[in-house]
Amino acid sequence: MTSDEAAADVGLLAPVRAGTAVENVTGDAAYVRALLDAEVALARAQESLGRAPAGSADAIASAARDAARFDPRLLALRARPGGNPVIPLAADLTAAVAEESPEAAAHVHRGATSQDILDTAAMLVASEALRLILADLDRAAAALATTAAEHRDTPMAGRTLTQHAVPTTFGLKAAGWRSLVLDAHDRTTAVRAALPVQLGGAAGTLAAFAAFAGSPNPVMGTPDAPGDETGTEDTGLGLVEAYATATGLAVPSLPWHTLRTPVADLGGALAFTAGALGKFAADVLVLSRTEIGEVAESTGGGSSAMPHKANPARAVLIASAARQVPALAGILYGALAAEDERPPGAWHAEWQPLREALRMVGGAAEGAAGLAEGLRVRPGRMRENLDATGGLIVSERIVAVLSARIGRSAARTAVTDGAARAAGEGLDLHEVLAQDPALAGVVPPDELRALSDPSGYTGSAGPLVDRALRRRTGGTVPE
Amino acid sequence: MTSDEAAADVGLLAPVRAGTAVENVTGDAAYVRALLDAEVALARAQESLGRAPAGSADAIASAARDAARFDPRLLALRARPGGNPVIPLAADLTAAVAEESPEAAAHVHRGATSQDILDTAAMLVASEALRLILADLDRAAAALATTAAEHRDTPMAGRTLTQHAVPTTFGLKAAGWRSLVLDAHDRTTAVRAALPVQLGGAAGTLAAFAAFAGSPNPVMGTPDAPGDETGTEDTGLGLVEAYATATGLAVPSLPWHTLRTPVADLGGALAFTAGALGKFAADVLVLSRTEIGEVAESTGGGSSAMPHKANPARAVLIASAARQVPALAGILYGALAAEDERPPGAWHAEWQPLREALRMVGGAAEGAAGLAEGLRVRPGRMRENLDATGGLIVSERIVAVLSARIGRSAARTAVTDGAARAAGEGLDLHEVLAQDPALAGVVPPDELRALSDPSGYTGSAGPLVDRALRRRTGGTVPE
Amino acid sequence: MTSDEAAADVGLLAPVRAGTAVENVTGDAAYVRALLDAEVALARAQESLGRAPAGSADAIASAARDAARFDPRLLALRARPGGNPVIPLAADLTAAVAEESPEAAAHVHRGATSQDILDTAAMLVASEALRLILADLDRAAAALATTAAEHRDTPMAGRTLTQHAVPTTFGLKAAGWRSLVLDAHDRTTAVRAALPVQLGGAAGTLAAFAAFAGSPNPVMGTPDAPGDETGTEDTGLGLVEAYATATGLAVPSLPWHTLRTPVADLGGALAFTAGALGKFAADVLVLSRTEIGEVAESTGGGSSAMPHKANPARAVLIASAARQVPALAGILYGALAAEDERPPGAWHAEWQPLREALRMVGGAAEGAAGLAEGLRVRPGRMRENLDATGGLIVSERIVAVLSARIGRSAARTAVTDGAARAAGEGLDLHEVLAQDPALAGVVPPDELRALSDPSGYTGSAGPLVDRALRRRTGGTVPE
Amino acid sequence: MTSDEAAADVGLLAPVRAGTAVENVTGDAAYVRALLDAEVALARAQESLGRAPAGSADAIASAARDAARFDPRLLALRARPGGNPVIPLAADLTAAVAEESPEAAAHVHRGATSQDILDTAAMLVASEALRLILADLDRAAAALATTAAEHRDTPMAGRTLTQHAVPTTFGLKAAGWRSLVLDAHDRTTAVRAALPVQLGGAAGTLAAFAAFAGSPNPVMGTPDAPGDETGTEDTGLGLVEAYATATGLAVPSLPWHTLRTPVADLGGALAFTAGALGKFAADVLVLSRTEIGEVAESTGGGSSAMPHKANPARAVLIASAARQVPALAGILYGALAAEDERPPGAWHAEWQPLREALRMVGGAAEGAAGLAEGLRVRPGRMRENLDATGGLIVSERIVAVLSARIGRSAARTAVTDGAARAAGEGLDLHEVLAQDPALAGVVPPDELRALSDPSGYTGSAGPLVDRALRRRTGGTVPE
Repeated sequence: MTSDEAAADVGLLAPVRAGTAVENVTGDAAYVRALLDAEVALARAQESLGRAPAGSADAIASAARDAARFDPRLLALRARPGGNPVIPLAADLTAAVAEESPEAAAHVHRGATSQDILDTAAMLVASEALRLILADLDRAAAALATTAAEHRDTPMAGRTLTQHAVPTTFGLKAAGWRSLVLDAHDRTTAVRAALPVQLGGAAGTLAAFAAFAGSPNPVMGTPDAPGDETGTEDTGLGLVEAYATATGLAVPSLPWHTLRTPVADLGGALAFTAGALGKFAADVLVLSRTEIGEVAESTGGGSSAMPHKANPARAVLIASAARQVPALAGILYGALAAEDERPPGAWHAEWQPLREALRMVGGAAEGAAGLAEGLRVRPGRMRENLDATGGLIVSERIVAVLSARIGRSAARTAVTDGAARAAGEGLDLHEVLAQDPALAGVVPPDELRALSDPSGYTGSAGPLVDRALRRRTGGTVPE
Repeated sequence: MTSDEAAADVGLLAPVRAGTAVENVTGDAAYVRALLDAEVALARAQESLGRAPAGSADAIASAARDAARFDPRLLALRARPGGNPVIPLAADLTAAVAEESPEAAAHVHRGATSQDILDTAAMLVASEALRLILADLDRAAAALATTAAEHRDTPMAGRTLTQHAVPTTFGLKAAGWRSLVLDAHDRTTAVRAALPVQLGGAAGTLAAFAAFAGSPNPVMGTPDAPGDETGTEDTGLGLVEAYATATGLAVPSLPWHTLRTPVADLGGALAFTAGALGKFAADVLVLSRTEIGEVAESTGGGSSAMPHKANPARAVLIASAARQVPALAGILYGALAAEDERPPGAWHAEWQPLREALRMVGGAAEGAAGLAEGLRVRPGRMRENLDATGGLIVSERIVAVLSARIGRSAARTAVTDGAARAAGEGLDLHEVLAQDPALAGVVPPDELRALSDPSGYTGSAGPLVDRALRRRTGGTVPE
Repeated sequence: MTSDEAAADVGLLAPVRAGTAVENVTGDAAYVRALLDAEVALARAQESLGRAPAGSADAIASAARDAARFDPRLLALRARPGGNPVIPLAADLTAAVAEESPEAAAHVHRGATSQDILDTAAMLVASEALRLILADLDRAAAALATTAAEHRDTPMAGRTLTQHAVPTTFGLKAAGWRSLVLDAHDRTTAVRAALPVQLGGAAGTLAAFAAFAGSPNPVMGTPDAPGDETGTEDTGLGLVEAYATATGLAVPSLPWHTLRTPVADLGGALAFTAGALGKFAADVLVLSRTEIGEVAESTGGGSSAMPHKANPARAVLIASAARQVPALAGILYGALAAEDERPPGAWHAEWQPLREALRMVGGAAEGAAGLAEGLRVRPGRMRENLDATGGLIVSERIVAVLSARIGRSAARTAVTDGAARAAGEGLDLHEVLAQDPALAGVVPPDELRALSDPSGYTGSAGPLVDRALRRRTGGTVPE
Repeated sequence: MTSDEAAADVGLLAPVRAGTAVENVTGDAAYVRALLDAEVALARAQESLGRAPAGSADAIASAARDAARFDPRLLALRARPGGNPVIPLAADLTAAVAEESPEAAAHVHRGATSQDILDTAAMLVASEALRLILADLDRAAAALATTAAEHRDTPMAGRTLTQHAVPTTFGLKAAGWRSLVLDAHDRTTAVRAALPVQLGGAAGTLAAFAAFAGSPNPVMGTPDAPGDETGTEDTGLGLVEAYATATGLAVPSLPWHTLRTPVADLGGALAFTAGALGKFAADVLVLSRTEIGEVAESTGGGSSAMPHKANPARAVLIASAARQVPALAGILYGALAAEDERPPGAWHAEWQPLREALRMVGGAAEGAAGLAEGLRVRPGRMRENLDATGGLIVSERIVAVLSARIGRSAARTAVTDGAARAAGEGLDLHEVLAQDPALAGVVPPDELRALSDPSGYTGSAGPLVDRALRRRTGGTVPE
């Protein structure tokens, strides 16, 4: 192994995404590929406007295909002096093209600034990663819909501040997980649709493209005609549109070298998605506890020391992502405050956190899909836990019913005292209350027993599930 | 001063928001007011459905109006044992109502859980704070539009990685600031429109509302009729809709005690807005530097020691907000992973960061509006700075023009060597190049001099400004 | 209520610290007091060196005592134009002193910059807040030591990734909590001892102090004598030492207006302490769960809806702090990268996060002390939970013992199969293994039963507790 | 390229550390090496205590040397199901050893839990990375000491809130940079010295080691003898000490699976160091601005488009690190609140941020050393900038001198008015003041001119530099 290989991160410390599909579209090799795609697309855009000779884009594309010439590690090492990898990459691409077509070589990267290429490549990578993420969110949502429907009326303990509160249903819980997954899907879809191409040249004015094209300066030479509402006749603006077409990305309203809306929006959508999946994982982790045992992962992770253990490994890894991505998004939001036409540091600080967030969320989404599809639900344990407190879990209901008969304050006192006695004596609450002289004649023992059935006190859980399931998923993700 | 007053934060350490309008709608007294509004609205909703006696909501509203009974500090002190301020507040409100109407008192907070009230209050506060923020973003956008139009063709140095790169225009810069402000406006508007009411009862099933209403359990007693597409006939769901109507907030698809989309979205929009305004401030800070001097605040902050100083105080304070809000948003995104039906800590960790983010962004927006409206622009200093490098700032353009005549490589060499010589000898680049024998006959001195005019090399800056200004602002914000 | 009162934060959204002692020493009024103390101390230092007339410091101190003249809210409002509250405060103090002694008034704030006063005040506030925090950490450590000793040999389930792993003891767990509390104590003590005074004047050169003192410029007029190893004969350096003496703070090696070590160190120590207490709270929250029930808070928080609930309210609030302080510390670490002699934003971004971190950690520490002192431990529930898996919790031990007799692989197979069968059939593991023909003659049933006793498999837990308890606490905190 | 290679991060998006020495000691291959070292050291410790046959550690070490058997990517892929890479690695190592020595194979990983190995490996990696970081901090400090001494009396503008304030010296600025570097060195050294070995087995009780050793349970069988002060006679504790010896790491007071002091401390020291270097970079970036030009990097980064540009590339990359590491440290501080004996997510969330922080700070430190060693200082530009405001930069001094003669208020008025007139008319302040009738006879023009020399108003800058340089660096770093 060379020292360069020693430096690589191949996923050893990130099992949440190691080996998932998103890793392959977000690795350094994928970025190099996207950088080359961005250069080729720029040539195609120029050629489409007649500003590069016919065939030059094909010549550049052909040279770009020779992956061996564009080794990510070598590019990384050469990126340090200039601070970004596009400088050596553009030089290598120019040299490669020149071997076949010196004329085409003159059009490689022409007029562009490094950031045009790097930002466009990042958007291409993000678009592909989000496509995978959306597909996994769809899988998770579909599985959770099935689970929610199946367990629409499965009662379980509702828990607040770690304590049993009142009953709920597992269907409502699963519908809630799905609701968050759909929220994540909506936000991710919207951000993905808006991912823009980047093109502006050194200071975002597109001036060099005109200069190289031999065009007169658009400001001085071709005054924007009165009534021109589209502005696309401008040399630069037309090129941006052609570039967007060539890449499949959106047209930005302005070059965004220091208007970082797309990156901040990605940060927000990814932090949201990590958190949304993190809620699912957090609940699975609680419900999987040995003492609770209400759900289990389809195939738990093994242990090197304890053969009996079946760990909720997927949930653990999703939880690990949910702890990291908000901090990464914070870096990206912080990078909005970028001075000048290219900031000294804020832009460079975006690259790694954005990539890590994309792949960590991608891994979490794949894990969540598997977790949702394979989740083992144990209604029996849910019922055991519901019953474990001897009816205390429905004390709220009994207070409500008694309030109508003896007033709120007296009802509260009766139930509070009864709950204490029941807990102390190991009795069921309804048994204790049946013996309370203050309640004699107010509520018969049979009614008390009926009121104490947790499965009869799940409120609107069923209708809520029904309504939540009527919300549809995002549907097919465009390529 | 009592020790309680000693504990108060009245803005001393937060000049970015001290005294701004947003402070008064986000202080603890405003939260207490919103908590009471949430309790009153619940009573109105119940009464509107016939589940509380006619007049009870008015009785509750009347009692809630007695602000002296609901001292924020006393509520805060009593919040600690139970972990939230709604417990003492609901008790006080009940007592106050009981003095006038014991019957109405029985309907205070009935069926609700503390989180129903606190979350609803937080949404009411957020809605009002965002209204102020949107108005200030509108002001800022309007002022920046004027500035961008006025300076559409004012040339200035484009700066990348702290160095002069190529020319740009101040109009393009101002249009970029406005573009970010509009992006912030769009995101904030969308989040504000979706702020939902919270209602679910202890575990989000709405069960207690039915129990208190004397309704049969909707799950067991009133099976969701086949073909019922709306679900609103359910006791609980109907109440949520009535509650939304009473508060003016949106209807959530599910109780969101641990589905924290609204709070996470607020965090994202606020971090975005802080960053967007932070970009404006960051540029103003650079351009205000003594050595650059291209812009100045209308009225600079004074100094206690140096009478001549005019500090860019607004920009400084906006910058201070841009450094804090992303971290606060990170806390909110992190709180998405909330276990159970109410999490032990994640929910409580949202309150203060959300409030601080609202008021810090509110202060930053007010500051940005003032900054934009009063910004002093100095085209003369811009021109001096443009000229200070003797034409090096247009070297890219000269390379482009020469490339067409002598090839890219030779052009690059000629300009690189010329730039070095010009810098070394204190000459203008075009003078040095005019003496370069390799360029004799290639480009006449007059053309070189013309090419060296920075104001002639601003590319598509003008059309970009025109296009950006065609984007409209969000318009009026609904109350 | 005035609109100014409406803006105040009096703890409503921060129950973790509402009403705790630390709140009163970190409120805006406490900062105003500290700012005045810093001004007075500067006058004392000047007077002690003969650079202010005798009695002037007393005159200034006397005026500073009139709290009604220094209203925090009014100062906050006047801070906005200049960006910091010292500007109006120094003006008010000067005016107040002038009423009694115009001569002394000329010495108020003389030579200082706002940051000298504000930073010094922040260190005074931090010192006092850390004193309270250290005392509460001491309380918590003492209580946990008692608990650890008492439960040195109380067996309970060790849990990893939410699942029972192998037994541990409650004593070891409590010793671990104490260990973290002591680590926090150590770090906090070290940071507190180093909190420095700030003094440098406008750009950190101390030049104005010499200028006002009528001293010749020390650089030009009093060349540092060869062999002068202390440097304290310099006008400025001597004043810094006198100022440190007057405040009780440490002497910094350099003015630290943009060398923010003290603030970053505070951020680190506070984030550490919040996290350390957060571990304690996280465990209490797990162990308090209804299904686990191994510990309970002395007095649980009530619920507005469910009379039977006893929430772990202290642990919840501590957990809420542990989720916020790391993000606040991130802001403080980020502020280290402060440009120039006073940065435009980074410094201002420190004030509020530092204060919030101090008071949130203070509240968490007070809560942790109460939690530790009142924790109810239930060895019976621990034993029930240990036994609930029928001996699976000691499967590791049985593998170890069998490995020595039949080899590691065969041992592992026997136990894995046995564990599956035991879980499936509801038997104890040792019963199943006793029936395994492969183990016949290898290990007698009696030994199997003995090996299966969880209380016999707690390893070095006892000696670890003993060793951990030999570590002493920090002892008395100096005032 | 295989899809696995496509997934790798080889530094393309992290030029701050690409190709630096720290990368090779923090890559996944380095972690695999450290994991194997941890396994071997455990065997050595066991053998040293007679609990493994003589030669078994050598046999394990020999097998571990066959790097081809331990491919990081394959281990990463197999880590996902169980959630950590030690499970497959221990299996592979056992298999490899078994080929040569089945007896030794039985002792691979015996008694350990995955976390024992992974945490120990992380500490080994951190120790080596910190060694490199400390060496680069030493280099930076040495170069900055030379610079500070050389420019002890070089005057330059002190800048606050982006504006010229009063003069300072470049020596004082460089001494401040060095002071922060030394602070970082101190904190890093302290953390490195305390990095502990991890050993506890499944739940931190060390029970399995005793079980495999055939020892009686120490709790039951060998009661801790009265008066035993060391506790090292305990089977488990003795093994921890032997393990520490075998690894070169410190002995922890307790197993720290969920007592994460070492990791939190690493986070704090790394965030501190990133910020400390970030201050240096932030100043270089300001002072490098085209309009300021007071310093330049030895070899600026090139530009793909503008041949004349010489970017401050090192400072940019250091700044990019300073923006990322605080957020990563926040994740690590957040992970302190880790429930149970191994937390479901908090531990897993540490791995990648810790590694990234180590290598990003390592790259920043190497960059800072190079930046400090090669920094080009331009006293001429400093003087030009000092003079550019016509003496306004010493207005504070003139106020001070005049105050002694005509009172503070009158002095302030005279200078404020004069400064406004000087700025308006393009005159020097002393010229304007010389014409002020109010000052006639108060201060002669010659004195005014002398007072206006910025180089005469640098206060204690020189003595401060002298004192700061007497602070010594950390000296040699032990291997």
